[in-house]
Amino acid sequence: MGFIQLQQHYHERIAIVLADAINNLTSLAPTLKAAMEYGLLQGGKRVRPMLVYTSGDLLDQPNNAALDAAAAAIECIHAYSLIHDDLPAMDNDDLRRGQPTVHTAFDEATAILAGDALQALAFELLSQPTLGLSAERQLRMVQELAKASGYQGMCGGQALDIQWEGKAIDPATLESLHRHKTGALIRAAVRLGALCANNMQEVHFTALSRYADAIGLAFQVQDDILDITADTQTLGKTQGKDQEQQKSTYPALLGLDGARSLADSLQQQALSALADIPYPTQTLEAFALYIVKRDF
Amino acid sequence: MGFIQLQQHYHERIAIVLADAINNLTSLAPTLKAAMEYGLLQGGKRVRPMLVYTSGDLLDQPNNAALDAAAAAIECIHAYSLIHDDLPAMDNDDLRRGQPTVHTAFDEATAILAGDALQALAFELLSQPTLGLSAERQLRMVQELAKASGYQGMCGGQALDIQWEGKAIDPATLESLHRHKTGALIRAAVRLGALCANNMQEVHFTALSRYADAIGLAFQVQDDILDITADTQTLGKTQGKDQEQQKSTYPALLGLDGARSLADSLQQQALSALADIPYPTQTLEAFALYIVKRDF
Repeated sequence: MGFIQLQQHYHERIAIVLADAINNLTSLAPTLKAAMEYGLLQGGKRVRPMLVYTSGDLLDQPNNAALDAAAAAIECIHAYSLIHDDLPAMDNDDLRRGQPTVHTAFDEATAILAGDALQALAFELLSQPTLGLSAERQLRMVQELAKASGYQGMCGGQALDIQWEGKAIDPATLESLHRHKTGALIRAAVRLGALCANNMQEVHFTALSRYADAIGLAFQVQDDILDITADTQTLGKTQGKDQEQQKSTYPALLGLDGARSLADSLQQQALSALADIPYPTQTLEAFALYIVKRDF
Repeated sequence: MGFIQLQQHYHERIAIVLADAINNLTSLAPTLKAAMEYGLLQGGKRVRPMLVYTSGDLLDQPNNAALDAAAAAIECIHAYSLIHDDLPAMDNDDLRRGQPTVHTAFDEATAILAGDALQALAFELLSQPTLGLSAERQLRMVQELAKASGYQGMCGGQALDIQWEGKAIDPATLESLHRHKTGALIRAAVRLGALCANNMQEVHFTALSRYADAIGLAFQVQDDILDITADTQTLGKTQGKDQEQQKSTYPALLGLDGARSLADSLQQQALSALADIPYPTQTLEAFALYIVKRDF
């Protein structure tokens, strides 16, 4: 199966898994449920679930129930972070993936709660007692996701982003910002996928982590580039928003060519990390290429 | 040790544990760290950590590291829920425990992030690999906390609260609202404490759950009563806020005497649940009394 077909396949798979996760919720609070569904199922590139699947399927004996739970959990975290990011007090975005944001379609209070409940759902999915992995392995996955999404990961990166808005930033701090804000969850996606393989070896886990670190940063560099070069319709969100909000970006710091060359170099780092893995890594290679060459 | 001394003892213990949890965070994002600390360490009654400790210490062989982690995790969830509740889009409260709320002392974006990061920290604490419980047991604790704090628990209850604001509510729906909004986390506190005891038996777990359900609802009934009868200074938050926001309360539904008699009856239910437990339950009995008789 080529990369495009595989992408399609994983997209369909995660769509079903996420829809199930929402359908399994009771009818206790219909508006909250609808807002969670709206925020979670609205679409998007599903980069993180795809990385979970790709990483897990690479190794021998992947556990499919565990992969589905991990992919859904990480997308719940990603979705909640977008819902909260879009709030008036944060980025104040009306559009996300070409659709009204959750607080626009519902209201602010419901959007805050939907984000909170999606975060809890992520940990609920990952700690289900029926996944067929050892409890030790699952506990490690919970620890991984909690660290990647909290203060030492995504939330800390978001805070740095706010702290540096409108201020001159140095390259090292910008890298730290992105390694936390976006990189931590992409790293967790790859690592959670690997942890779903029963025979995962630590040496491959380390190599996959290096791969993930490289594509995680590349992803953000490309995001910064697209904020300048793509139009609003292709992007599905407001183009030029970073510049308008005086966010520090790689093109602002390195110029557009400099940013492109950094993305290429990170892609090379990702590919060289894969050389240490004795399994067919074509899909992860294609993924690294996709991250840097995508136009939305 | 009497109840007051024990309360003091547990207060000091959880204060140290929570301070450690914050001190263990890196210096990555100082403002976010300060906001998390402010929201978590500002004080409060520490009812939930105390319940974790009391429930765990009741049974044989409690694991102290696990009890500390569970107590801290549940207080992180509680603290995050207060931070988000106080936001302008939610209850719009300036005062909490007599101090400026987190979004007032910092800003809204930081308050949202601090809440998000405290939720992640809860799951990080609970999934630490060094607690000395079996991984199965710890995974069950993660599952318990995730369910209690998410859509099927606290967040769902919050959503019901918003949905019914300013509308006439029937007693059954009000009970469901509170059993989710406040009760779920109080139930989780008692259950997590029990799960920290290596020799916990399911029959005692069930009895403790019934106890927790009764005091959880009693706690909210008493909160509703205090909103009317206590003054702002004693309460540490704005008195009469429920009435002002047209929230449905037990005194509004049953009258003040009716609400008081419900609280007493729930206290009796709690005590009778304890009769099934072959350990000295004096502290849990005193706790049930404290819940209903407290004046703040």
